[in-house]
Amino acid sequence: VHELDLPTPALVIDAARFEANLATMADAHPGPRLRPHVKAHKCTALAREQAHRGHRGFTCATPLEVVGMARAGLGVDLLLANETVDPDRLRAMAEAPDAIVTVAVDSDATVEAAAAAGIRHVLIDVDIGLPRCGCRVDDAGRLADLARAKGMDVRGVMGYEGHLMMVLDRVEQRAKVAACVDKLMVAHAAVGGPVISGGGTGTYDLHDRLTEVQAGSYALMDTHYAKLGLPFGQALSILGTVISSSADWAVADVGLKSLGMDHGNPSMEGYAVRFCSDEHVTFTRLDDGAALPKVGDRVRVWPAHVDPTMALHERAHLVRDGDVIETWAIDLRGW
Amino acid sequence: VHELDLPTPALVIDAARFEANLATMADAHPGPRLRPHVKAHKCTALAREQAHRGHRGFTCATPLEVVGMARAGLGVDLLLANETVDPDRLRAMAEAPDAIVTVAVDSDATVEAAAAAGIRHVLIDVDIGLPRCGCRVDDAGRLADLARAKGMDVRGVMGYEGHLMMVLDRVEQRAKVAACVDKLMVAHAAVGGPVISGGGTGTYDLHDRLTEVQAGSYALMDTHYAKLGLPFGQALSILGTVISSSADWAVADVGLKSLGMDHGNPSMEGYAVRFCSDEHVTFTRLDDGAALPKVGDRVRVWPAHVDPTMALHERAHLVRDGDVIETWAIDLRGW
Repeated sequence: VHELDLPTPALVIDAARFEANLATMADAHPGPRLRPHVKAHKCTALAREQAHRGHRGFTCATPLEVVGMARAGLGVDLLLANETVDPDRLRAMAEAPDAIVTVAVDSDATVEAAAAAGIRHVLIDVDIGLPRCGCRVDDAGRLADLARAKGMDVRGVMGYEGHLMMVLDRVEQRAKVAACVDKLMVAHAAVGGPVISGGGTGTYDLHDRLTEVQAGSYALMDTHYAKLGLPFGQALSILGTVISSSADWAVADVGLKSLGMDHGNPSMEGYAVRFCSDEHVTFTRLDDGAALPKVGDRVRVWPAHVDPTMALHERAHLVRDGDVIETWAIDLRGW
Repeated sequence: VHELDLPTPALVIDAARFEANLATMADAHPGPRLRPHVKAHKCTALAREQAHRGHRGFTCATPLEVVGMARAGLGVDLLLANETVDPDRLRAMAEAPDAIVTVAVDSDATVEAAAAAGIRHVLIDVDIGLPRCGCRVDDAGRLADLARAKGMDVRGVMGYEGHLMMVLDRVEQRAKVAACVDKLMVAHAAVGGPVISGGGTGTYDLHDRLTEVQAGSYALMDTHYAKLGLPFGQALSILGTVISSSADWAVADVGLKSLGMDHGNPSMEGYAVRFCSDEHVTFTRLDDGAALPKVGDRVRVWPAHVDPTMALHERAHLVRDGDVIETWAIDLRGW
């Protein structure tokens, strides 16, 4: 099937760019130096491609991602880099087949819930500057002691400098990232263990003290991350069909229900996106752009944020030279 | 099951508010005067409640919604208020079981595609001011003639004044809506047929010339529509669990993947939402607000836009006095 014959909206992955992204990252962080983040794609078939490049440990954001990866045979070393106190989901992760599961903890409550559910491995999640999860640096050692007292293996620490991903000045970004990692190293000194985990696509090349980087967006990218000028290409787009066209604008069937919108409107080459509705994108000509397409023509829409975009689709099509070579289920949606 | 025992994030519908919303709208637009828009909820169980209130015709935005409604036994009078030229999907709608399907058309291409696929009924979709779909007013009669020449029944016209939904000054809004309906009436004079369809929740009470109103958001509402002060209550919220809590902020498991974000951040009573990540909402205390909750506590998050929020969830729970009385599949997702 040619990509232009897919029913629309169709989520498509450019195989050449995707493979180049995986190769570039595997060069920078070979094997276990990268723990790819599954939340960016929620797709075991895509994760399998990352595993083929040597990355056998994965980062997850939800228990469903952890259990789904285990069931897909990708459970060698799964990290839930997020907190949960849900006893059923913790137990499901502890009992996931053929899997080693490590869970992030940042409080007494999360340590106790993990221990009670039979979780065997934890990482101490440390607040290194992003106001989200993570314990205080000076509380990390105490939490590690608590976890060990409850019989769990403490594998080390993690921290996510998510607030620094989009710092455009790389000198400034490098300095700020170093200050965050300083904090993580202080916590690690108190916690111990072999793992120091953190980072993301926007800071992937600024880490030499972490034992592993948690990047996810690098595989598919989006217009938001593209602003950083990283050596990863936008591999993910959405094909739409023009359903209405007037003298001044045209409309394609790619709307809010096929696009993560938290980073704003998507982009279209040669056109200006005016606004999105539930099932529509209205776009106009650029002054020097192409003529508006006619009804039935296909157009390509570039999402601004890959992660929530993937979460809206049931499947993605891998395309090489216009031909659909594989169709992947986005099988890790939900919680 | 009590709603506070649901695994989170959990999409919940307050039964009392939902029923009041349905009653208020059924009073204003009884029976066929309202054609509820399915895109706002994508849920056949919820649509059945609307049908129980006397509204047996429905508005849809995607062919999948049309076919799904027909399969659920709700196909008495289904309108695809949107354009498509997909021959397979048009045929699926034409062959939907026990259904009368009407499709919006606004161009030669959409008329021809509908006729070729065996669609029997069309509405002429007219541009009345929103830069999206719809033919020019002065082209509506010609398109109706073309559709009739191809053997299709032209039931009338539709137009959507979506650009006026959020006009806060009601006097201004009324005048602008009237000008839009003026255009639709001109088109209708050229087209003929019994149906003049349009409107939405934000303008539901400003229509006396339409034969039917297409409102959808009124049933569940969101923080965006709540700004209008309409007599519909916010019935849709997302329950989350606090997974991390510090001195200055707390984090719950309700993020970008459970919230339509195109209208901005969600709201939380008593707290200020600071930002959302894929699986997190970080929130702080208001100056005069409640203390931050502790890990394991449940919190309620109010989405800013109902339609894309529904599209991210597999199910919604109908809750009365805290108890889950029904769980509805959101079974019309996708295209």
